Amino acid sequence: MTTQQLIGAQQWRYAVKAFDATRKISAQTWEALEQALILSPSSYGLQPYRFLVLTDPAIRESLVPHAWGQRQVADCSHFVVFTAKDKVSEADVDHFIQRIAAVRGVAPDSLGSYRGMMVSDIVQGPRSKTASEWAARQAYIALGNLMTSAAVLGVDACPIEGFVPAKFDEILKLKGSGYHAVVCCALGYRAAGDKYASLPKVRFPAAELIRHI
Amino acid sequence: MTTQQLIGAQQWRYAVKAFDATRKISAQTWEALEQALILSPSSYGLQPYRFLVLTDPAIRESLVPHAWGQRQVADCSHFVVFTAKDKVSEADVDHFIQRIAAVRGVAPDSLGSYRGMMVSDIVQGPRSKTASEWAARQAYIALGNLMTSAAVLGVDACPIEGFVPAKFDEILKLKGSGYHAVVCCALGYRAAGDKYASLPKVRFPAAELIRHI
Repeated sequence: MTTQQLIGAQQWRYAVKAFDATRKISAQTWEALEQALILSPSSYGLQPYRFLVLTDPAIRESLVPHAWGQRQVADCSHFVVFTAKDKVSEADVDHFIQRIAAVRGVAPDSLGSYRGMMVSDIVQGPRSKTASEWAARQAYIALGNLMTSAAVLGVDACPIEGFVPAKFDEILKLKGSGYHAVVCCALGYRAAGDKYASLPKVRFPAAELIRHI
Repeated sequence: MTTQQLIGAQQWRYAVKAFDATRKISAQTWEALEQALILSPSSYGLQPYRFLVLTDPAIRESLVPHAWGQRQVADCSHFVVFTAKDKVSEADVDHFIQRIAAVRGVAPDSLGSYRGMMVSDIVQGPRSKTASEWAARQAYIALGNLMTSAAVLGVDACPIEGFVPAKFDEILKLKGSGYHAVVCCALGYRAAGDKYASLPKVRFPAAELIRHI
Protein backbone atom coordinates (compact mmCIF):
# COMPACT_ATOMS: atom_id res chain seq x y z
CA MET A 1 0.00 0.00 0.00
CA THR A 2 1.35 3.47 -0.81
CA THR A 3 1.64 6.20 1.80
CA GLN A 4 -1.03 8.19 -0.05
CA GLN A 5 -3.45 5.26 0.05
CA LEU A 6 -2.87 4.82 3.77
CA ILE A 7 -3.46 8.48 4.55
CA GLY A 8 -6.44 8.48 2.21
CA ALA A 9 -7.99 5.62 4.17
CA GLN A 10 -7.33 7.36 7.50
CA GLN A 11 -8.86 10.59 6.18
CA TRP A 12 -11.84 8.69 4.76
CA ARG A 13 -12.75 7.02 8.03
CA TYR A 14 -14.76 8.80 10.72
CA ALA A 15 -16.92 7.77 13.65
CA VAL A 16 -20.08 6.81 11.79
CA LYS A 17 -23.24 8.16 13.38
CA ALA A 18 -25.75 6.58 10.97
CA PHE A 19 -25.18 3.18 9.39
CA ASP A 20 -27.04 1.90 6.35
CA ALA A 21 -28.90 -0.92 8.10
CA THR A 22 -29.53 -2.68 4.78
CA ARG A 23 -25.84 -3.14 3.91
CA LYS A 24 -23.94 -6.06 5.36
CA ILE A 25 -20.20 -6.73 5.33
CA SER A 26 -19.48 -9.69 3.02
CA ALA A 27 -18.40 -12.97 4.56
CA GLN A 28 -14.95 -12.71 2.97
CA THR A 29 -14.33 -9.20 4.24
CA TRP A 30 -15.61 -10.04 7.70
CA GLU A 31 -13.36 -13.10 7.83
CA ALA A 32 -10.38 -10.82 7.15
CA LEU A 33 -11.40 -8.44 9.93
CA GLU A 34 -11.70 -11.35 12.36
CA GLN A 35 -8.23 -12.46 11.28
CA ALA A 36 -6.97 -8.95 12.02
CA LEU A 37 -8.44 -9.21 15.52
CA ILE A 38 -6.83 -12.59 16.04
CA LEU A 39 -3.47 -11.39 14.75
CA SER A 40 -3.44 -8.25 16.93
CA PRO A 41 -0.23 -7.81 18.91
CA SER A 42 -0.46 -7.96 22.70
CA SER A 43 2.01 -7.71 25.55
CA TYR A 44 3.99 -10.99 25.84
CA GLY A 45 1.54 -12.30 23.25
CA LEU A 46 -0.77 -13.18 26.16
CA GLN A 47 -3.99 -12.09 24.41
CA PRO A 48 -5.83 -11.32 27.67
CA TYR A 49 -9.12 -10.69 25.84
CA ARG A 50 -11.96 -12.22 23.92
CA PHE A 51 -13.96 -10.65 21.11
CA LEU A 52 -17.73 -11.01 20.95
CA VAL A 53 -19.21 -10.59 17.49
CA LEU A 54 -22.87 -9.72 17.73
CA THR A 55 -25.15 -10.25 14.78
CA ASP A 56 -28.36 -11.25 16.61
CA PRO A 57 -30.80 -8.34 16.05
CA ALA A 58 -32.75 -8.84 19.27
CA ILE A 59 -29.69 -8.84 21.51
CA ARG A 60 -28.26 -5.80 19.77
CA GLU A 61 -31.54 -3.93 20.09
CA SER A 62 -31.59 -4.75 23.80
CA LEU A 63 -28.15 -3.16 24.21
CA VAL A 64 -29.10 0.18 22.64
CA PRO A 65 -30.69 1.68 25.79
CA HIS A 66 -27.50 0.85 27.68
CA ALA A 67 -25.33 2.53 25.04
CA TRP A 68 -26.66 6.06 25.41
CA GLY A 69 -29.32 5.17 22.83
CA GLN A 70 -26.76 5.01 20.05
CA ARG A 71 -28.44 3.39 17.04
CA GLN A 72 -25.13 2.25 15.63
CA VAL A 73 -25.30 -0.74 17.99
CA ALA A 74 -28.39 -2.05 16.22
CA ASP A 75 -28.00 -0.60 12.72
CA CYS A 76 -24.44 -1.60 11.86
CA SER A 77 -23.57 -4.84 10.09
CA HIS A 78 -21.34 -6.43 12.75
CA PHE A 79 -21.00 -5.23 16.32
CA VAL A 80 -17.89 -6.20 18.27
CA VAL A 81 -17.67 -6.12 22.07
CA PHE A 82 -14.08 -6.20 23.31
CA THR A 83 -13.82 -8.01 26.62
CA ALA A 84 -10.73 -8.11 28.83
CA LYS A 85 -9.68 -10.49 31.55
CA ASP A 86 -10.61 -9.57 35.12
CA LYS A 87 -7.19 -10.76 36.26
CA VAL A 88 -4.30 -12.85 35.00
CA SER A 89 -3.48 -16.09 36.82
CA GLU A 90 -0.66 -18.61 36.64
CA ALA A 91 -3.13 -20.91 34.92
CA ASP A 92 -3.59 -18.28 32.20
CA VAL A 93 0.15 -18.08 31.71
CA ASP A 94 0.40 -21.87 31.56
CA HIS A 95 -2.41 -22.02 29.03
CA PHE A 96 -0.43 -19.61 26.85
CA ILE A 97 2.82 -21.52 27.36
CA GLN A 98 1.07 -24.72 26.25
CA ARG A 99 -0.13 -22.92 23.15
CA ILE A 100 3.37 -21.65 22.28
CA ALA A 101 4.74 -25.16 22.77
CA ALA A 102 2.06 -26.66 20.52
CA VAL A 103 2.39 -24.07 17.73
CA ARG A 104 6.18 -24.03 17.71
CA GLY A 105 6.75 -27.69 18.46
CA VAL A 106 8.90 -27.18 21.54
CA ALA A 107 8.71 -28.59 25.06
CA PRO A 108 6.81 -26.39 27.55
CA ASP A 109 9.74 -26.79 29.96
CA SER A 110 12.02 -25.03 27.48
CA LEU A 111 9.87 -21.90 27.97
CA GLY A 112 10.46 -21.77 31.72
CA SER A 113 12.28 -18.46 31.79
CA TYR A 114 9.64 -16.79 29.61
CA ARG A 115 6.95 -18.21 31.89
CA GLY A 116 8.80 -16.91 34.94
CA MET A 117 9.09 -13.45 33.42
CA MET A 118 5.35 -13.23 32.83
CA VAL A 119 4.40 -14.64 36.23
CA SER A 120 6.75 -12.34 38.12
CA ASP A 121 5.38 -9.34 36.24
CA ILE A 122 1.68 -9.64 35.57
CA VAL A 123 0.64 -12.40 38.02
CA GLN A 124 2.74 -11.65 41.09
CA GLY A 125 4.56 -8.38 40.40
CA PRO A 126 3.49 -4.76 40.83
CA ARG A 127 1.57 -4.91 37.58
CA SER A 128 -0.68 -7.67 38.96
CA LYS A 129 -2.55 -4.99 40.92
CA THR A 130 -3.61 -3.37 37.66
CA ALA A 131 -3.81 -6.52 35.54
CA SER A 132 -7.42 -5.83 34.58
CA GLU A 133 -6.46 -2.41 33.27
CA TRP A 134 -3.39 -3.84 31.56
CA ALA A 135 -5.67 -6.36 29.84
CA ALA A 136 -8.03 -3.56 28.78
CA ARG A 137 -5.12 -1.69 27.20
CA GLN A 138 -4.26 -4.76 25.14
CA ALA A 139 -7.87 -4.85 23.95
CA TYR A 140 -7.49 -1.22 22.86
CA ILE A 141 -4.53 -2.19 20.67
CA ALA A 142 -6.90 -4.64 18.97
CA LEU A 143 -9.48 -1.86 18.66
CA GLY A 144 -6.95 0.43 16.97
CA ASN A 145 -5.85 -2.38 14.71
CA LEU A 146 -9.45 -3.24 13.80
CA MET A 147 -10.38 0.35 12.95
CA THR A 148 -7.34 0.81 10.70
CA SER A 149 -7.87 -2.60 9.11
CA ALA A 150 -11.49 -1.70 8.39
CA ALA A 151 -10.49 1.65 6.90
CA VAL A 152 -7.97 0.15 4.47
CA LEU A 153 -10.64 -2.34 3.35
CA GLY A 154 -13.21 0.43 2.86
CA VAL A 155 -15.37 -0.70 5.78
CA ASP A 156 -16.87 1.94 8.05
CA ALA A 157 -16.69 1.84 11.82
CA CYS A 158 -17.65 3.62 15.00
CA PRO A 159 -15.83 2.97 18.26
CA ILE A 160 -18.13 3.09 21.28
CA GLU A 161 -17.03 3.78 24.84
CA GLY A 162 -20.37 5.27 25.82
CA PHE A 163 -22.15 2.28 27.29
CA VAL A 164 -22.90 0.81 30.70
CA PRO A 165 -20.37 -2.01 31.13
CA ALA A 166 -22.28 -3.72 33.94
CA LYS A 167 -25.42 -3.89 31.79
CA PHE A 168 -23.50 -5.22 28.82
CA ASP A 169 -21.85 -7.83 31.05
CA GLU A 170 -25.27 -8.87 32.30
CA ILE A 171 -26.97 -9.12 28.89
CA LEU A 172 -23.98 -10.87 27.34
CA LYS A 173 -23.74 -13.25 30.31
CA LEU A 174 -20.15 -12.29 31.08
CA LYS A 175 -20.51 -12.39 34.85
CA GLY A 176 -18.41 -15.18 36.24
CA SER A 177 -16.70 -15.73 32.87
CA GLY A 178 -13.48 -14.01 33.93
CA TYR A 179 -13.96 -11.36 31.24
CA HIS A 180 -15.74 -8.02 31.19
CA ALA A 181 -16.71 -5.61 28.42
CA VAL A 182 -14.30 -2.70 27.99
CA VAL A 183 -15.06 -1.08 24.63
CA CYS A 184 -17.09 -1.74 21.48
CA CYS A 185 -16.88 -1.15 17.77
CA ALA A 186 -19.73 -1.02 15.28
CA LEU A 187 -18.80 -1.91 11.70
CA GLY A 188 -20.64 -1.70 8.43
CA TYR A 189 -21.35 1.02 5.88
CA ARG A 190 -22.30 4.65 6.40
CA ALA A 191 -25.82 5.77 5.50
CA ALA A 192 -25.96 8.16 2.55
CA GLY A 193 -27.47 10.84 4.74
CA ASP A 194 -24.94 10.80 7.61
CA LYS A 195 -23.99 14.47 7.77
CA TYR A 196 -20.99 13.69 9.97
CA ALA A 197 -19.29 12.05 6.99
CA SER A 198 -18.56 15.38 5.35
CA LEU A 199 -17.52 17.41 8.41
CA PRO A 200 -13.84 18.40 8.38
CA LYS A 201 -11.82 16.16 10.67
CA VAL A 202 -10.70 17.93 13.85
CA ARG A 203 -7.18 17.26 15.07
CA PHE A 204 -4.76 19.43 16.99
CA PRO A 205 -1.91 20.81 14.85
CA ALA A 206 0.97 18.41 14.25
CA ALA A 207 3.32 20.69 16.18
CA GLU A 208 1.11 20.27 19.23
CA LEU A 209 0.58 16.51 18.98
CA ILE A 210 4.10 15.48 18.01
CA ARG A 211 7.41 16.54 19.51
CA HIS A 212 10.72 15.60 17.94
CA ILE A 213 13.62 14.91 20.25
CA MET B 1 -6.27 -3.00 -0.32
CA THR B 2 -7.49 -6.57 -0.72
CA THR B 3 -8.33 -8.78 2.23
CA GLN B 4 -5.40 -11.03 1.32
CA GLN B 5 -2.99 -8.10 1.34
CA LEU B 6 -4.24 -6.98 4.74
CA ILE B 7 -3.88 -10.43 6.27
CA GLY B 8 -0.52 -10.80 4.58
CA ALA B 9 0.69 -7.61 6.24
CA GLN B 10 -0.61 -8.72 9.63
CA GLN B 11 1.08 -12.10 9.25
CA TRP B 12 4.31 -10.44 8.09
CA ARG B 13 4.62 -8.18 11.11
CA TYR B 14 6.05 -9.41 14.41
CA ALA B 15 7.64 -7.82 17.47
CA VAL B 16 11.12 -7.15 16.10
CA LYS B 17 13.89 -8.15 18.47
CA ALA B 18 16.83 -6.98 16.34
CA PHE B 19 16.62 -3.94 14.09
CA ASP B 20 19.05 -3.21 11.26
CA ALA B 21 20.61 -0.09 12.79
CA THR B 22 21.88 1.04 9.38
CA ARG B 23 18.43 1.27 7.78
CA LYS B 24 16.34 4.38 8.27
CA ILE B 25 12.69 4.96 7.41
CA SER B 26 12.46 7.43 4.51
CA ALA B 27 11.16 10.94 5.18
CA GLN B 28 8.08 10.33 3.04
CA THR B 29 7.16 7.10 4.79
CA TRP B 30 7.77 8.58 8.21
CA GLU B 31 5.59 11.56 7.37
CA ALA B 32 2.76 9.14 6.56
CA LEU B 33 3.20 7.33 9.87
CA GLU B 34 3.09 10.63 11.74
CA GLN B 35 -0.09 11.47 9.85
CA ALA B 36 -1.53 8.14 10.96
CA LEU B 37 -0.74 9.05 14.57
CA ILE B 38 -2.37 12.45 14.15
CA LEU B 39 -5.45 10.97 12.48
CA SER B 40 -5.94 8.29 15.16
CA PRO B 41 -9.47 8.16 16.54
CA SER B 42 -9.96 9.01 20.21
CA SER B 43 -12.92 9.24 22.54
CA TYR B 44 -14.86 12.47 21.84
CA GLY B 45 -11.93 13.34 19.56
CA LEU B 46 -10.20 14.78 22.64
CA GLN B 47 -6.73 13.43 21.76
CA PRO B 48 -5.54 13.30 25.40
CA TYR B 49 -2.00 12.40 24.37
CA ARG B 50 1.18 13.61 22.78
CA PHE B 51 3.66 11.59 20.75
CA LEU B 52 7.39 11.98 21.24
CA VAL B 53 9.48 10.96 18.26
CA LEU B 54 13.03 10.21 19.34
CA THR B 55 15.83 10.25 16.81
CA ASP B 56 18.65 11.61 19.01
CA PRO B 57 21.10 8.69 19.46
CA ALA B 58 22.41 9.82 22.86
CA ILE B 59 18.99 10.17 24.43
CA ARG B 60 17.86 6.84 23.03
CA GLU B 61 20.99 5.11 24.31
CA SER B 62 20.36 6.60 27.75
CA LEU B 63 16.87 5.05 27.78
CA VAL B 64 18.05 1.49 27.06
CA PRO B 65 18.98 0.62 30.67
CA HIS B 66 15.49 1.73 31.73
CA ALA B 67 13.84 -0.44 29.10
CA TRP B 68 15.02 -3.81 30.35
CA GLY B 69 18.12 -3.38 28.20
CA GLN B 70 16.14 -3.78 25.00
CA ARG B 71 18.39 -2.71 22.14
CA GLN B 72 15.42 -1.90 19.92
CA VAL B 73 15.21 1.48 21.69
CA ALA B 74 18.60 2.51 20.32
CA ASP B 75 18.84 0.42 17.14
CA CYS B 76 15.53 1.20 15.45
CA SER B 77 15.06 4.03 12.98
CA HIS B 78 12.40 6.05 14.83
CA PHE B 79 11.38 5.51 18.45
CA VAL B 80 7.97 6.77 19.56
CA VAL B 81 7.03 7.37 23.20
CA PHE B 82 3.28 7.61 23.71
CA THR B 83 2.42 10.00 26.52
CA ALA B 84 -1.03 10.44 28.03
CA LYS B 85 -2.53 13.27 30.04
CA ASP B 86 -2.31 13.02 33.82
CA LYS B 87 -5.86 14.34 34.07
CA VAL B 88 -8.42 16.13 31.92
CA SER B 89 -9.51 19.64 32.93
CA GLU B 90 -12.19 22.04 31.76
CA ALA B 91 -9.41 24.03 30.12
CA ASP B 92 -8.48 20.95 28.08
CA VAL B 93 -12.08 20.59 26.93
CA ASP B 94 -12.22 24.30 26.05
CA HIS B 95 -8.98 24.02 24.12
CA PHE B 96 -10.55 21.23 22.07
CA ILE B 97 -13.80 23.14 21.60
CA GLN B 98 -11.82 26.11 20.28
CA ARG B 99 -10.10 23.80 17.84
CA ILE B 100 -13.39 22.34 16.57
CA ALA B 101 -14.76 25.85 16.15
CA ALA B 102 -11.68 26.95 14.20
CA VAL B 103 -11.52 23.89 11.93
CA ARG B 104 -15.25 23.78 11.19
CA GLY B 105 -15.88 27.53 11.14
CA VAL B 106 -18.57 27.54 13.81
CA ALA B 107 -19.03 29.58 16.98
CA PRO B 108 -17.67 27.91 20.15
CA ASP B 109 -20.99 28.67 21.85
CA SER B 110 -22.80 26.46 19.35
CA LEU B 111 -20.85 23.52 20.80
CA GLY B 112 -22.12 24.04 24.33
CA SER B 113 -24.00 20.78 24.65
CA TYR B 114 -21.02 18.78 23.35
CA ARG B 115 -18.78 20.65 25.77
CA GLY B 116 -21.20 19.88 28.62
CA MET B 117 -21.26 16.20 27.74
CA MET B 118 -17.46 15.95 27.91
CA VAL B 119 -17.15 17.96 31.12
CA SER B 120 -19.88 16.01 32.92
CA ASP B 121 -18.22 12.74 31.90
CA ILE B 122 -14.46 12.98 31.89
CA VAL B 123 -13.84 16.14 33.96
CA GLN B 124 -16.51 15.94 36.67
CA GLY B 125 -18.24 12.57 36.25
CA PRO B 126 -17.32 9.11 37.55
CA ARG B 127 -14.82 8.70 34.74
CA SER B 128 -12.81 11.70 35.99
CA LYS B 129 -11.38 9.45 38.72
CA THR B 130 -9.77 7.29 36.06
CA ALA B 131 -9.11 10.00 33.48
CA SER B 132 -5.41 9.21 33.37
CA GLU B 133 -6.16 5.59 32.56
CA TRP B 134 -8.82 6.63 30.06
CA ALA B 135 -6.22 8.83 28.38
CA ALA B 136 -3.75 5.93 28.31
CA ARG B 137 -6.34 3.75 26.58
CA GLN B 138 -6.74 6.37 23.87
CA ALA B 139 -2.98 6.30 23.39
CA TYR B 140 -3.20 2.54 22.93
CA ILE B 141 -5.68 3.03 20.08
CA ALA B 142 -3.00 5.17 18.44
CA LEU B 143 -0.45 2.42 19.13
CA GLY B 144 -2.66 -0.18 17.45
CA ASN B 145 -3.26 2.16 14.54
CA LEU B 146 0.47 2.89 14.18
CA MET B 147 1.48 -0.77 14.19
CA THR B 148 -1.10 -1.70 11.54
CA SER B 149 -0.21 1.38 9.48
CA ALA B 150 3.45 0.43 9.64
CA ALA B 151 2.69 -3.15 8.62
CA VAL B 152 0.72 -2.16 5.53
CA LEU B 153 3.59 0.12 4.50
CA GLY B 154 6.16 -2.65 5.02
CA VAL B 155 7.74 -0.97 8.04
CA ASP B 156 8.75 -3.12 11.00
CA ALA B 157 7.86 -2.34 14.58
CA CYS B 158 8.19 -3.48 18.15
CA PRO B 159 5.78 -2.28 20.84
CA ILE B 160 7.47 -1.81 24.21
CA GLU B 161 5.70 -1.86 27.56
CA GLY B 162 8.77 -3.08 29.40
CA PHE B 163 10.30 0.16 30.62
CA VAL B 164 10.41 2.24 33.78
CA PRO B 165 7.90 5.05 33.20
CA ALA B 166 9.27 7.28 35.96
CA LYS B 167 12.76 7.11 34.45
CA PHE B 168 11.47 7.84 30.98
CA ASP B 169 9.47 10.78 32.34
CA GLU B 170 12.60 12.08 34.00
CA ILE B 171 14.92 11.74 31.00
CA LEU B 172 12.32 13.14 28.61
CA LYS B 173 11.56 16.00 31.00
CA LEU B 174 7.88 15.15 31.23
CA LYS B 175 7.52 15.93 34.92
CA GLY B 176 5.22 18.91 35.34
CA SER B 177 4.21 18.78 31.67
CA GLY B 178 0.82 17.24 32.40
CA TYR B 179 1.75 14.15 30.38
CA HIS B 180 3.44 10.88 31.28
CA ALA B 181 4.88 8.02 29.25
CA VAL B 182 2.54 5.04 28.89
CA VAL B 183 3.89 2.87 26.10
CA CYS B 184 6.50 2.97 23.32
CA CYS B 185 6.98 1.69 19.80
CA ALA B 186 10.25 1.17 17.98
CA LEU B 187 10.02 1.36 14.18
CA GLY B 188 12.45 0.59 11.41
CA TYR B 189 13.58 -2.52 9.57
CA ARG B 190 14.35 -5.98 10.93
CA ALA B 191 17.95 -7.19 10.92
CA ALA B 192 18.59 -10.05 8.53
CA GLY B 193 19.62 -12.28 11.43
CA ASP B 194 16.61 -11.77 13.71
CA LYS B 195 15.57 -15.36 14.35
CA TYR B 196 12.23 -14.23 15.77
CA ALA B 197 11.15 -13.19 12.27
CA SER B 198 10.69 -16.77 11.16
CA LEU B 199 9.06 -18.24 14.27
CA PRO B 200 5.43 -19.28 13.73
CA LYS B 201 3.04 -16.70 15.15
CA VAL B 202 1.33 -17.88 18.33
CA ARG B 203 -2.35 -17.07 18.72
CA PHE B 204 -5.13 -18.88 20.52
CA PRO B 205 -7.54 -20.68 18.18
CA ALA B 206 -10.23 -18.50 16.60
CA ALA B 207 -12.94 -20.42 18.44
CA GLU B 208 -11.33 -19.42 21.72
CA LEU B 209 -10.71 -15.76 20.89
CA ILE B 210 -13.95 -14.99 19.10
CA ARG B 211 -17.49 -15.82 20.12
CA HIS B 212 -20.43 -15.23 17.80
CA ILE B 213 -23.71 -14.19 19.38
